[in-house]
Amino acid sequence: MSEETGGWQRTTIDEAEAAAHPEHAAAVAGIKALRQSIDNIDSAIIALLAERFKATSQVGVLKASAGFAPEDTKREDYQIERLHRIAVDAGLDPEIAEMYREFVVTEAKKRHARIADAGGDPGVLDIFA
Amino acid sequence: MSEETGGWQRTTIDEAEAAAHPEHAAAVAGIKALRQSIDNIDSAIIALLAERFKATSQVGVLKASAGFAPEDTKREDYQIERLHRIAVDAGLDPEIAEMYREFVVTEAKKRHARIADAGGDPGVLDIFA
Repeated sequence: MSEETGGWQRTTIDEAEAAAHPEHAAAVAGIKALRQSIDNIDSAIIALLAERFKATSQVGVLKASAGFAPEDTKREDYQIERLHRIAVDAGLDPEIAEMYREFVVTEAKKRHARIADAGGDPGVLDIFA
Repeated sequence: MSEETGGWQRTTIDEAEAAAHPEHAAAVAGIKALRQSIDNIDSAIIALLAERFKATSQVGVLKASAGFAPEDTKREDYQIERLHRIAVDAGLDPEIAEMYREFVVTEAKKRHARIADAGGDPGVLDIFA
């Protein structure tokens, strides 16, 4: 079916699609079930990201109080090696794990710099700090 | 202490730093404890990302078999609204949640296109599919 995918840019996968094309009903039902699992996984990840940024915000306060810089390259090297290993064990493309690491570390460092600029006050990160 | 952070680019936070600057020992110990929690959170997130990409890989196979396009903008609108709401409830900056969503959805769509181009074979995503 790969030939067909070149011809259009998007598909809305829902009951209307299944009703219009009965031959697609099984695929629509399967995708719907998988999407519920994906949504549940996202809920868990968002909760964990909230906890992660609370922890890195506290790190930012401690760094600012001691006058430490936002960047710690030795820590980053450790994280790169560790996340690569965990990803392979979990069956995740390590490239995805590295993109995840870059994303969270970059955002955490930006927030550390903002905390330091505010004299160590995490309140600068607004109510979501 | 914010004035001081402008003068250097990075700090290695470890026992050597604590030994050289006893006044920083408490901050170093606090950061070390927080980093262990951050590592544990990362382990959980990597495991969940592995499961998420397994699920989206299956979605990709079903999409390719039915000739559906990788993109489904209605689904994306739903995810944007949902993740924003969950982030606020969890105390996470919704901007971070949106960056997370863009990251995983972009990568999932790239993989869907590769599966479709391979005629519905998820094996194209190598052993980490």
